[in-house]
Amino acid sequence: MTRLKLGMVGGGQGAFIGAVHRIAARLDDRFELVAGCLASTPERAAASAAGIGLPRSYDTYQEMAKTEAALEDGIDAVAIVTPNHMHAPVATGFLKAGIHVICDKPLTAALDDAKALQDVVAASGKLFILTHNYTGYPLIREARDRVARGDLGKILQVRAEYLQDWLAEAPPPDQKQAAWRLDPAKAGAGALGDIGTHAYNLACFVAGQQATSLAAEVSASVPGRQIDDTASVQLRLDGGARGHIHVSNAAIGHENDLSLRIYGTKGSLSWRQEAPNEMRLARFGEPVQILTRGSGAVSPAAARVTRVPPGHPEGYLEAFATIYSDASDAILAANGTTLPPDHHINTVADGVAGMEFVSACLASSDNDAAWVDLT
Amino acid sequence: MTRLKLGMVGGGQGAFIGAVHRIAARLDDRFELVAGCLASTPERAAASAAGIGLPRSYDTYQEMAKTEAALEDGIDAVAIVTPNHMHAPVATGFLKAGIHVICDKPLTAALDDAKALQDVVAASGKLFILTHNYTGYPLIREARDRVARGDLGKILQVRAEYLQDWLAEAPPPDQKQAAWRLDPAKAGAGALGDIGTHAYNLACFVAGQQATSLAAEVSASVPGRQIDDTASVQLRLDGGARGHIHVSNAAIGHENDLSLRIYGTKGSLSWRQEAPNEMRLARFGEPVQILTRGSGAVSPAAARVTRVPPGHPEGYLEAFATIYSDASDAILAANGTTLPPDHHINTVADGVAGMEFVSACLASSDNDAAWVDLT
Amino acid sequence: MTRLKLGMVGGGQGAFIGAVHRIAARLDDRFELVAGCLASTPERAAASAAGIGLPRSYDTYQEMAKTEAALEDGIDAVAIVTPNHMHAPVATGFLKAGIHVICDKPLTAALDDAKALQDVVAASGKLFILTHNYTGYPLIREARDRVARGDLGKILQVRAEYLQDWLAEAPPPDQKQAAWRLDPAKAGAGALGDIGTHAYNLACFVAGQQATSLAAEVSASVPGRQIDDTASVQLRLDGGARGHIHVSNAAIGHENDLSLRIYGTKGSLSWRQEAPNEMRLARFGEPVQILTRGSGAVSPAAARVTRVPPGHPEGYLEAFATIYSDASDAILAANGTTLPPDHHINTVADGVAGMEFVSACLASSDNDAAWVDLT
Amino acid sequence: MTRLKLGMVGGGQGAFIGAVHRIAARLDDRFELVAGCLASTPERAAASAAGIGLPRSYDTYQEMAKTEAALEDGIDAVAIVTPNHMHAPVATGFLKAGIHVICDKPLTAALDDAKALQDVVAASGKLFILTHNYTGYPLIREARDRVARGDLGKILQVRAEYLQDWLAEAPPPDQKQAAWRLDPAKAGAGALGDIGTHAYNLACFVAGQQATSLAAEVSASVPGRQIDDTASVQLRLDGGARGHIHVSNAAIGHENDLSLRIYGTKGSLSWRQEAPNEMRLARFGEPVQILTRGSGAVSPAAARVTRVPPGHPEGYLEAFATIYSDASDAILAANGTTLPPDHHINTVADGVAGMEFVSACLASSDNDAAWVDLT
Repeated sequence: MTRLKLGMVGGGQGAFIGAVHRIAARLDDRFELVAGCLASTPERAAASAAGIGLPRSYDTYQEMAKTEAALEDGIDAVAIVTPNHMHAPVATGFLKAGIHVICDKPLTAALDDAKALQDVVAASGKLFILTHNYTGYPLIREARDRVARGDLGKILQVRAEYLQDWLAEAPPPDQKQAAWRLDPAKAGAGALGDIGTHAYNLACFVAGQQATSLAAEVSASVPGRQIDDTASVQLRLDGGARGHIHVSNAAIGHENDLSLRIYGTKGSLSWRQEAPNEMRLARFGEPVQILTRGSGAVSPAAARVTRVPPGHPEGYLEAFATIYSDASDAILAANGTTLPPDHHINTVADGVAGMEFVSACLASSDNDAAWVDLT
Repeated sequence: MTRLKLGMVGGGQGAFIGAVHRIAARLDDRFELVAGCLASTPERAAASAAGIGLPRSYDTYQEMAKTEAALEDGIDAVAIVTPNHMHAPVATGFLKAGIHVICDKPLTAALDDAKALQDVVAASGKLFILTHNYTGYPLIREARDRVARGDLGKILQVRAEYLQDWLAEAPPPDQKQAAWRLDPAKAGAGALGDIGTHAYNLACFVAGQQATSLAAEVSASVPGRQIDDTASVQLRLDGGARGHIHVSNAAIGHENDLSLRIYGTKGSLSWRQEAPNEMRLARFGEPVQILTRGSGAVSPAAARVTRVPPGHPEGYLEAFATIYSDASDAILAANGTTLPPDHHINTVADGVAGMEFVSACLASSDNDAAWVDLT
Repeated sequence: MTRLKLGMVGGGQGAFIGAVHRIAARLDDRFELVAGCLASTPERAAASAAGIGLPRSYDTYQEMAKTEAALEDGIDAVAIVTPNHMHAPVATGFLKAGIHVICDKPLTAALDDAKALQDVVAASGKLFILTHNYTGYPLIREARDRVARGDLGKILQVRAEYLQDWLAEAPPPDQKQAAWRLDPAKAGAGALGDIGTHAYNLACFVAGQQATSLAAEVSASVPGRQIDDTASVQLRLDGGARGHIHVSNAAIGHENDLSLRIYGTKGSLSWRQEAPNEMRLARFGEPVQILTRGSGAVSPAAARVTRVPPGHPEGYLEAFATIYSDASDAILAANGTTLPPDHHINTVADGVAGMEFVSACLASSDNDAAWVDLT
Repeated sequence: MTRLKLGMVGGGQGAFIGAVHRIAARLDDRFELVAGCLASTPERAAASAAGIGLPRSYDTYQEMAKTEAALEDGIDAVAIVTPNHMHAPVATGFLKAGIHVICDKPLTAALDDAKALQDVVAASGKLFILTHNYTGYPLIREARDRVARGDLGKILQVRAEYLQDWLAEAPPPDQKQAAWRLDPAKAGAGALGDIGTHAYNLACFVAGQQATSLAAEVSASVPGRQIDDTASVQLRLDGGARGHIHVSNAAIGHENDLSLRIYGTKGSLSWRQEAPNEMRLARFGEPVQILTRGSGAVSPAAARVTRVPPGHPEGYLEAFATIYSDASDAILAANGTTLPPDHHINTVADGVAGMEFVSACLASSDNDAAWVDLT
């Protein structure tokens, strides 16, 4: 199997998510990282590239897009792991150069940029893959499959939480991860953008429904903070379910506690990202079952994205690697191969949906938490 | 120590909560059950009394109130365990006869009745004790104590859930517990009254705050059901916290799953009624601690209501017994003894607050889940 | 239903288990405590009796046995809650007076005393009920029932642990509970007698098998301690299973952590006393099930000893109360009524078996942990 | 950073552990797989190599060792992932060719082979790294570090379990993983070799002690099985602790359930491989703490082998990757660089210790589970 050639923009020294993308791309041996513009100054870009033994390093992403597009063995796709406000310009540059894009979430810092980018993607004819990495967990695939085939009956309630506590206090000024995430100009929204879009995407992915309207209580826990760190959101979904999303990065006692519960007329399921190898499955009048990743009880959709047997825990990096493996399948399919069954990628449309969620939450919050329609 | 004399109205053969009250009253040996009107017909009342060896059985609660008030060794208090709509008339009868009342929740089926009863209580000068039994758990006392002394800092979020699944499908017509709870005339509200008032009371009890406004999504999961079985409620509390309450008796996979989480600026706590002997306690930047009932780490407020050492689980009946022991302390104090420190009872005011919560939720629901002020 | 009349020896002020027995006897309203000799000096006995409002208090147990036997309305049974070495003489006194005995465990401090008491019981024709209270948990009844009906197939492994940490350090000299338990003359054995007999009894009760031989590593964790605090015991059982028992009251991090696992050729079960309302049930090739106390999935044997629905946790006192309710059934049956189905009491034979277990463990330990046969 | 060149023997199509080694070697980007002899016939070897895009494939491991040793850019190390009985001959071949060896466990099928191999390693001057992958978990490093620095006081008890159920029934004859593991000629021992060596290694690694003697109950659960599937082993350790190891691959309800508990005079810790991102830590008289991987509370030894923040679960593959990263550090150090602090590899001596454990268990079992000394 030939490995695809991957480039990266962002992810230089001191960054968190760039290193995660590199491991994820490498884990299943479907990509080879060959080029990058890892930082926003030429010096740091070069040093970062040298630090990871990257063959080709560029001073600017514009130069990188142009050069790679012209190379015989140029990159097949670029991974964009910059702060949010740079996603759209970088993606636009590579898409216009004819290069597929794999982009971190949220899609952009502002909804308008998201919609504009969606047009660019459509015009380009290239793939745009948004890394909502939590959809890569095998038991999330299982959950989606069970909902889709009616195992839980008609869906009544969809409830997701995503709680962290790393911003429960004002961070030190030199903490790079925090700095741009707390700056409205670079991040757009706070917890809503950073983790709220994940929770909303996951809920919709599994439930197979999208919100039609919402009402959001949005708040900041630290005096002087310019951006939201907590939101409690009521949802109404287009399939008739009610929903609720609670996100915070100021909820002390939680590290990266994304969880999902789905209640239907015939059963329910419950899953937590911090213990991702099992899912509680309930049917009315029967003992609750503990469904484990990789066991004989899971569906082909889940088994396809599993590497090791049950009891050998897979985690965050493996789920992220599945996003990259699904991306490689999509890229190969764009070149003519057949997509495997149960294949899934998040697209620019999912990214726009996420930004509409954020935008509606902020609009609701500005109107005393009244209901707001999503389009 | 002399035992107080207790009477009971309701709780005849086939009832659930009456038997619970009797065990609770007996467990700590503070009460002796001596009289009752256990059912609404003389025949069933007499048979029920005989079945439990009750010394004095009455055909009607009116007769019972009158007769017991006149007896030299008449009852000190009456426990009312009828369906909701009968709480007010029965309580009124005994209060006017000069007998203390211990009453199951919710206070009434309708808010007007609750307010009227509050006036009756005030005029009577007698005790009215509402059995919000979940406040009797030692670790709930601990939680309240920690919040009150500032252990969690300023409270930001208060979140309670109370989920059951026994009404996830339409019950058989002959199921007595379900029949009156699904009848709007007898129950007033559905899940909101039956378990929502518990969740709201518990949240306020621990947080030391009351709601000033709320917005509620209320629904019924079973076609044709005349009463709510599910509600998702946003709260704003008078101490500045935001809150959320989620209740359902149609959430498959949950038996009696009442849980509470409190987030503050310095820490958080989390507790589940189904595993009531431990509480998760988090402080920013430190490992989460598992605090156990009865251990040396709990406060005097919690230790006072504990019977056996940690590791020897206490449960629902013990928590309920604490309500009765606190009631006996209150009755003795009404006769001149001193209340112990950290003593607590729920009063008619808590009952009115619960009914205002239910009423506001239904009003919000009738107005498309808009915000409604509580008075 | 008429309540039986109960007496008590031991359980005076400052005692732990006496108060537990009193609550247990009272909880299901099957007994009325009317007489006692609660302490070993007349002054403390009288003060203790007054403290709990006991009608008849005696200076000595001998006087109590003689007087109660002669009373028209004398006690039906006596509960013995003294230190271990007094069980046999007190029990003998009451049995010879024709009074049924309910006795705390272990049966005696020495095996010879246990065997002699067994003869006394046989000669008396009276009931001797040993309070192995953990057999009163509904899910333990369920476990036993499932093993007995072959639900797990042929039993391969039986593993019990009983871990505490209250004696991990030398206790203060004035701690009454510790003082006699650490005195070989009064306790006989340490952890082996106090909690090892519980673990062994529970394992045998559920597995339906008894040990034929064992090999035991026995140790003391605190310098200078005269008695065992830890034991790790290999077992061979008469039904062909292998077994293992690990007990310690010096295992830091455990409060009263009794647990049991049974592995068979078709399935397994796992249960922990500190979370007694659920049991893990596994069958080969199927998802693990969480079986809850009181749910529709449990057998009549478990349902019979359940008071409140699933999700309303029952605990230590309820399980202990079941021992007393089963005792009352046995006493009534001795007077001619019919025992209910699935009725169970632990007898003097179970007590002798426990003492043989302790004795064999100590003999093995004295012989470098070699195998020792049980008779 | 230059990647080391890796070869592989074994791990062809249908194998489990070979693919795991390849992911592990790749995850941290420290190795590049360039050569292999992936199967025992030339045809399957070539097909397997082609399937993963391997540059150089050999028909025999002898040819591979000879050729690679002579190449300018030949492999730095070979990973051996064959059935147990082939470890020694393959390792010997590469060591004699001057190539470092990374080898799966157990070291060999027979103890004599293990000792002979130990001599070969010593004579070669090359590295021999045994992949006891569970030592790669960050919280296992943390546990070892805490024991070593006295955080738990003097160690009293060391207890490990490793339970699986995949062999609870006789497997289908065509199941490749099971076939050689159930063949005494290829596997040496059954559960004792396959998982017992892991449990024993992990216990010794964390406790910092080795067994001096043991007594083992060994059994097979399936009629006709020629090899052990269950063992319950008592240990005495050279640091004064007692120990116990329980392993089975016929324990229904367990997937890959390796767990470890260490009790000391000051505290205890408890860890489960299936939930590897947290560890329970207890100190006498304090609430139990939940220590999480990657949090600020862990030591540098644990932090060094962590990739992503707490709450982002790492699992089996990450722990295995740490074994490879530690191997790469060791290989680089053999070439003159400095080993990082807290670096660890398992060596051939650990492999011999594992085989002595297996051998002693079988000897004990053959002598009615009597005590056997380890040398």
